Amino acid sequence: MKRAVVLLSGGLDSTTTLATTIAEGYETYALSFEYGQRHKIELDAARRIARALGAKEHRVAKIDMRIFGGSALTDDVDVPKKRSVTEIGHGIPVTYVPARNTIFLSYALALAETVGARDIFIGANAIDYSGYPDCRPEFIAAFETLANLATKAGVEGARFRIHAPLIKFSKAEIIRKALEFDVDLALTHSCYDPSPEGVACGKCDSCLLRLKGFREAGLEDPIGYANK
Amino acid sequence: MKRAVVLLSGGLDSTTTLATTIAEGYETYALSFEYGQRHKIELDAARRIARALGAKEHRVAKIDMRIFGGSALTDDVDVPKKRSVTEIGHGIPVTYVPARNTIFLSYALALAETVGARDIFIGANAIDYSGYPDCRPEFIAAFETLANLATKAGVEGARFRIHAPLIKFSKAEIIRKALEFDVDLALTHSCYDPSPEGVACGKCDSCLLRLKGFREAGLEDPIGYANK
Repeated sequence: MKRAVVLLSGGLDSTTTLATTIAEGYETYALSFEYGQRHKIELDAARRIARALGAKEHRVAKIDMRIFGGSALTDDVDVPKKRSVTEIGHGIPVTYVPARNTIFLSYALALAETVGARDIFIGANAIDYSGYPDCRPEFIAAFETLANLATKAGVEGARFRIHAPLIKFSKAEIIRKALEFDVDLALTHSCYDPSPEGVACGKCDSCLLRLKGFREAGLEDPIGYANK
Repeated sequence: MKRAVVLLSGGLDSTTTLATTIAEGYETYALSFEYGQRHKIELDAARRIARALGAKEHRVAKIDMRIFGGSALTDDVDVPKKRSVTEIGHGIPVTYVPARNTIFLSYALALAETVGARDIFIGANAIDYSGYPDCRPEFIAAFETLANLATKAGVEGARFRIHAPLIKFSKAEIIRKALEFDVDLALTHSCYDPSPEGVACGKCDSCLLRLKGFREAGLEDPIGYANK
């Protein structure tokens, strides 16, 4: 049976990516990270989703990215709140975490080599996104090249592939795709700055892009918001 | 002042690499990993070396690579012992850790971006080495390409460079270079399987390559061995 490793944050994009691999018949190893993010809520969502969608395994790697500092997602810097999506997209935001997807894909590669998977999936998206450099197609392609040079399996003739199936999808298209796969989107979590109870703020980049996606898909977001 | 990040394991190669950056006038951030290796001795050596050579900072990132398994350096698999270096070099050994240098360089990239360094140094060596795929020049070049696509600094026009200054040096040349820089090689630690007190075994790949290097340089290794 063909195997895949899927990076799973518990948000819309990675959840839809996980659903894609399962629909395509992969035996799927979901991989999440505990990296000093403020909200463990994200990890709880990832665990529920891995179970609900039928991942073979869900592993959580603990990595201390706080030794690098530098981002509102890992530091004590405030997550910026905005009035609407029109304020998003000018430059790279403070929620950028240095080399995050490079680190995440490196772990995914190690796990793939260990479990005998050759296909690695990431929910990176270059359309309705926040301007992160490591969500672009050229980054994904460069990592694939690296993966095949970096590993014993690559040297011995295996061919690793890095898939970012949603990279050119709008958020609305991602939502529709998730629903095609019967994913319960109430399980997903997107907010960068939820309340201690896990309620989404409705005003960070991630909430605004999510809400815009549901609006454009003509659907109601099943999760609750503190502000909307 | 120009800044560098240097991966520092505490062995001969990374120590000589650190000495190179300091001789070249970099303000140097040394980075080591606690990754479930059997021997904390390696980290103690790295700490002493960073201090002795004058690194500006020494950071230790704790990463749990045991969730991947797959290597005698992280698992409970025995480190193979050999009679001589002639037994080394047929295929990739069991001490190979999946995607290790990819993960290490990813962290180095994150740290470099955070502290404003553009130069990352790794003591990778493709001559007197054990056949690891992620010690080859093509791997280093692919990571440099990736680094410049992956980061905010790269997108904004900075140019990261990945330096592997020892990649084509023999072990004897590395030892001579270290002595040019007045490095006290008694501080370094190379053994994959030391005694609890930190005495090198003298029979693993790493010990055999080190001993061969000293022999070829016409010098006595200042550290002790359980077997030689």
